[in-house]
Amino acid sequence: MLKVAIIGATGYAGEELIRILLRHPDAEIVHLVAKIEQSCPINDIFPWLKGLLDVECKNEINEEEIAKNSDIIFLALPHRVSMQIAPDFLKLGKRVIDFSADYRLKDVTEYEKWYEVSHNSQEFVKESVYGLCELHRKDIQKARLIANPGCFPTGAILATAPFLKEQLVEPDIILDAKTGVSGAGRKPSTALLFSEVNENFKAYKVCDHQHSPEILQELQAFSKDKLSLIFVPHLVPMNRGILSTLYMKLKKNISVFEAVDVVKKFYQDEPFVRVRPADVFPEIKDVVHSNFCDIGIKIVDKQLIVIAAIDNLVKGAAGQAVQNFNIMFGLDETLGII
Amino acid sequence: MLKVAIIGATGYAGEELIRILLRHPDAEIVHLVAKIEQSCPINDIFPWLKGLLDVECKNEINEEEIAKNSDIIFLALPHRVSMQIAPDFLKLGKRVIDFSADYRLKDVTEYEKWYEVSHNSQEFVKESVYGLCELHRKDIQKARLIANPGCFPTGAILATAPFLKEQLVEPDIILDAKTGVSGAGRKPSTALLFSEVNENFKAYKVCDHQHSPEILQELQAFSKDKLSLIFVPHLVPMNRGILSTLYMKLKKNISVFEAVDVVKKFYQDEPFVRVRPADVFPEIKDVVHSNFCDIGIKIVDKQLIVIAAIDNLVKGAAGQAVQNFNIMFGLDETLGII
Amino acid sequence: MLKVAIIGATGYAGEELIRILLRHPDAEIVHLVAKIEQSCPINDIFPWLKGLLDVECKNEINEEEIAKNSDIIFLALPHRVSMQIAPDFLKLGKRVIDFSADYRLKDVTEYEKWYEVSHNSQEFVKESVYGLCELHRKDIQKARLIANPGCFPTGAILATAPFLKEQLVEPDIILDAKTGVSGAGRKPSTALLFSEVNENFKAYKVCDHQHSPEILQELQAFSKDKLSLIFVPHLVPMNRGILSTLYMKLKKNISVFEAVDVVKKFYQDEPFVRVRPADVFPEIKDVVHSNFCDIGIKIVDKQLIVIAAIDNLVKGAAGQAVQNFNIMFGLDETLGII
Amino acid sequence: MLKVAIIGATGYAGEELIRILLRHPDAEIVHLVAKIEQSCPINDIFPWLKGLLDVECKNEINEEEIAKNSDIIFLALPHRVSMQIAPDFLKLGKRVIDFSADYRLKDVTEYEKWYEVSHNSQEFVKESVYGLCELHRKDIQKARLIANPGCFPTGAILATAPFLKEQLVEPDIILDAKTGVSGAGRKPSTALLFSEVNENFKAYKVCDHQHSPEILQELQAFSKDKLSLIFVPHLVPMNRGILSTLYMKLKKNISVFEAVDVVKKFYQDEPFVRVRPADVFPEIKDVVHSNFCDIGIKIVDKQLIVIAAIDNLVKGAAGQAVQNFNIMFGLDETLGII
Repeated sequence: MLKVAIIGATGYAGEELIRILLRHPDAEIVHLVAKIEQSCPINDIFPWLKGLLDVECKNEINEEEIAKNSDIIFLALPHRVSMQIAPDFLKLGKRVIDFSADYRLKDVTEYEKWYEVSHNSQEFVKESVYGLCELHRKDIQKARLIANPGCFPTGAILATAPFLKEQLVEPDIILDAKTGVSGAGRKPSTALLFSEVNENFKAYKVCDHQHSPEILQELQAFSKDKLSLIFVPHLVPMNRGILSTLYMKLKKNISVFEAVDVVKKFYQDEPFVRVRPADVFPEIKDVVHSNFCDIGIKIVDKQLIVIAAIDNLVKGAAGQAVQNFNIMFGLDETLGII
Repeated sequence: MLKVAIIGATGYAGEELIRILLRHPDAEIVHLVAKIEQSCPINDIFPWLKGLLDVECKNEINEEEIAKNSDIIFLALPHRVSMQIAPDFLKLGKRVIDFSADYRLKDVTEYEKWYEVSHNSQEFVKESVYGLCELHRKDIQKARLIANPGCFPTGAILATAPFLKEQLVEPDIILDAKTGVSGAGRKPSTALLFSEVNENFKAYKVCDHQHSPEILQELQAFSKDKLSLIFVPHLVPMNRGILSTLYMKLKKNISVFEAVDVVKKFYQDEPFVRVRPADVFPEIKDVVHSNFCDIGIKIVDKQLIVIAAIDNLVKGAAGQAVQNFNIMFGLDETLGII
Repeated sequence: MLKVAIIGATGYAGEELIRILLRHPDAEIVHLVAKIEQSCPINDIFPWLKGLLDVECKNEINEEEIAKNSDIIFLALPHRVSMQIAPDFLKLGKRVIDFSADYRLKDVTEYEKWYEVSHNSQEFVKESVYGLCELHRKDIQKARLIANPGCFPTGAILATAPFLKEQLVEPDIILDAKTGVSGAGRKPSTALLFSEVNENFKAYKVCDHQHSPEILQELQAFSKDKLSLIFVPHLVPMNRGILSTLYMKLKKNISVFEAVDVVKKFYQDEPFVRVRPADVFPEIKDVVHSNFCDIGIKIVDKQLIVIAAIDNLVKGAAGQAVQNFNIMFGLDETLGII
Repeated sequence: MLKVAIIGATGYAGEELIRILLRHPDAEIVHLVAKIEQSCPINDIFPWLKGLLDVECKNEINEEEIAKNSDIIFLALPHRVSMQIAPDFLKLGKRVIDFSADYRLKDVTEYEKWYEVSHNSQEFVKESVYGLCELHRKDIQKARLIANPGCFPTGAILATAPFLKEQLVEPDIILDAKTGVSGAGRKPSTALLFSEVNENFKAYKVCDHQHSPEILQELQAFSKDKLSLIFVPHLVPMNRGILSTLYMKLKKNISVFEAVDVVKKFYQDEPFVRVRPADVFPEIKDVVHSNFCDIGIKIVDKQLIVIAAIDNLVKGAAGQAVQNFNIMFGLDETLGII
């Protein structure tokens, strides 16, 4: 039984991580920390945990105490906060899975530009592994520090990589993404009040979303051409899920069946990527509460349309983190998440 | 054309008041004030107003300037704030319609108990008129200060008063009310985030809601018996509307047809109360975006069930305020709200 | 590994049963039947099952074939349909868990009145066991035919029984219940279209809901007085969950702490009933996707208010069915549902 | 006072038309017809109309009787049904505004391909005017038969036409559109049940939506190049509104300010098109319940992003129909819809 610490246990991703780990046969939650007024049983904060989990949620991080009896530290923290904390655990010899963007971008200049902050632990950026399991499984196995991917990048990269790898598409990618509201986190906010979001729909951070460099970093590795990305996120009045509609131009004519085969082959041994038949598309309800990324494809003339659906809190956050954890510790990759 | 000032223009009730007054043939909005960082055109805050209203929304109240060319001051402010401001306008000879609870309760001790604050303008409590138009029309005509009713009390009182007046029911009233989320206002909040409210349903402030004394004050006037009220509000994942389900015991056997007639007679000349046939009940969608209060009735043995539906922002706030305004200035009572 | 057949696999309760059984370590789904145009893999109907379940869903019931290699038959069928099918399986020596109302009411006259149909297998009504596990565990262990409780009765009975058993309350019970929309089933309908339900809220079948006799049957067993029930269901714009707000009059003054203790004691060994501290109430999100029934209590004078929350598809249908299944086959009662 | 008949009064567009006309100072509803079991007062079907409208809704069309005292016939009917009925009214000398697609496509072959039916009144296709007021105002003034535009085309055409007219963009247009659920109409359906749509999001009819030819027909008129359209509609869990996100490639570099000016100039005298400042985008809540089309623009390199928001039932259906009506009868174009 591996011992788990979760720092940032009361955000949506932290809560989802607890939910998943309760079903994980080889993991035991031993430490919980969150930014709360005072320490209390986690099930006082989340009454749904009554009778299921009785761990105290602390309001301060005692790194040494946590490190002493934890096998893995999950940091479900906001950008900019993780990099204040991750180094301590790494220096104490612990393995860390970080949900924030702090160690995702290999180009620190890009990070500092998009997140408007100086990076204070650049020495760990280099060794961190981008935790998109389908692309970096080998590196994940031996990683000490996993930069768990962002929610938008997970679907977008999985849907696009196979076509770039086969050099089938032009380097200009349009990503029209639609996300549920939990992606914005559990912080007091006027813009995210129920009455503001419900019965509304909008684009936001148009071509200005901080997940853009992360998508480009990962996809550029597959492409000989210099990629460009037009990324327009939209907010859907629902709790969970991201549907990414991708538009790419094919370099040459291929059939939709060939296109489906390209993706199927790329993910042939992957337990969490499901490819639909030609011209059939996934919906959010096909993946919600699951770690799957479902992909559908259509071609009209040389226009390629790829739609990917994930649950932003599972494959887009806590589920993928557990998938990384399973890989890191040599467990069956699907434990607790299928 | 009567000139209108709105203090608190950017809350849900203030916004709804603007919406209604735009359609009012005899009212012109001339002053807007709100708690905003800096003054700006109101249509910068509410883009839906582009091309419809071009008034500057100020971030400070200049009472003298506002009083100079306003015929009526609407205070769409939170409890405790109104009473800091209303007296200034009254002293300047202006008529005021106050959306808050500050002048609703004639018993100041009750006010101070429920709102946990000292009342600082008790001299105006006495002369204020509780603006439930169907009950206090005559007093409203000549009032200087209207205490616009709370959203829950509006439906609950209208549904109950006819039965109490006829001494038909026992004095123990159960009010199981269900409200849309806009009733909670437009303030940053974690508990009211979309992801917290959506796909959830809960009771809150069980037998502890500050609208209780207001309901009792108004209903007690009709009853020889000392009334008791069990009031359980619930939060519905929808933007607008309050459905109030009331349970009362009949003192003697009457038929549901007699009961319907009691209510129809009570409201026979009222433009905004609609009584359904026996055993037929109103839904929120029957009244949303309207100033109507719809009422349905059923009797099982001696148990009387009355259901009232209103739009909390219209008949429960801004619409009723305009109805009061129309009455105060001798206009057709339905102007702008039918 | 016990072999499971599900008849009615494509309704909301049937789908939820599949979801639960996939996680059940001792159950294997071997037969699926539904009212569909033609037989097909179940994961063609529910794409979320791709990679998880590959069983064919048949469009006809072959009782003999199903009986041959099934240990248990779940009938997730509408009222009136189950009683056409259950007897065949019983006669073939199979155990049956029926989700419909067909075998819940011991008084067949009541059944025929409420469901407006003649009962055609009255011989099995007598031996059927009402599958509210907390009340009938012993009988369930050896039952051949379980009448799985209705969704409204589950919460209402659990919340009320302890007080009736202790003879603490008057016999007049008011149940103001609020349900998510999945309770209405997956049939084409205009009244249940998204645009009809969303941003709406209403009461329906006021004092006329077919679950009333079932609640009375079970509760009457605890009471010396003849009970009366006022039951007003309401429809909430959310997918899942039932919140039941119950109003009862205490026969004598007791404190809320005593009341909480009464319920805690009644359910002291129950894995799926959680009692909140005095004056603290459960919300739908505390129980959604779980088999728990959470209960909160408040007392004002002699008025007792009890609120119970369940997930209508889990504790109110498929989860409770699996709980019954676990009990029937001597398994750990929480398998697959905790 | 002009006399109005509405055929198809109980669908979402018909209901919205009633709502709008109630506020129209120069229109009076005199005839209502719908596909209902038996004729009844319209306010029995829509209780929100109690006290507001007392017209009988007939369940059969008596063309002669209706024509006798109607100035205008609105057909709020499904595709394929309108063309059975419109000719009768036209032959009786009446003017008709048709909500369906039956007279929108000048190329009857295209119509027959997309709607899979033979067109049975081709003689009227030629004289019909496509009722997008901003493009065809002059023809609308004297038209006998208006083909009221589809909901998707309204926003998409308005957002694109100015750029095509100035020959600024390449002929390949990507339209990623997101619609509320009322666009699908009020017919019994399993796919549109609340529990199917809520907490879900999906693409549908990908590159296969029947509004495609209508968009191309209108836009082609502005372009020297042969246009191609990639149109991917998505279903949003909300009642009303369409947000259209359009992607086009600029032929030459222009600034976003120039682009905004192009659109502002195109619509300089239009009462119902509002253009946002550069890089600012409209949301659904800016236009809901209004007849406005709001447009926002951004440019990244030579990629042009245009977002248009409308209310599908107002500018996308009933509001635009009234705008057409106002134009046809020489009224102020904004009567009843501002």
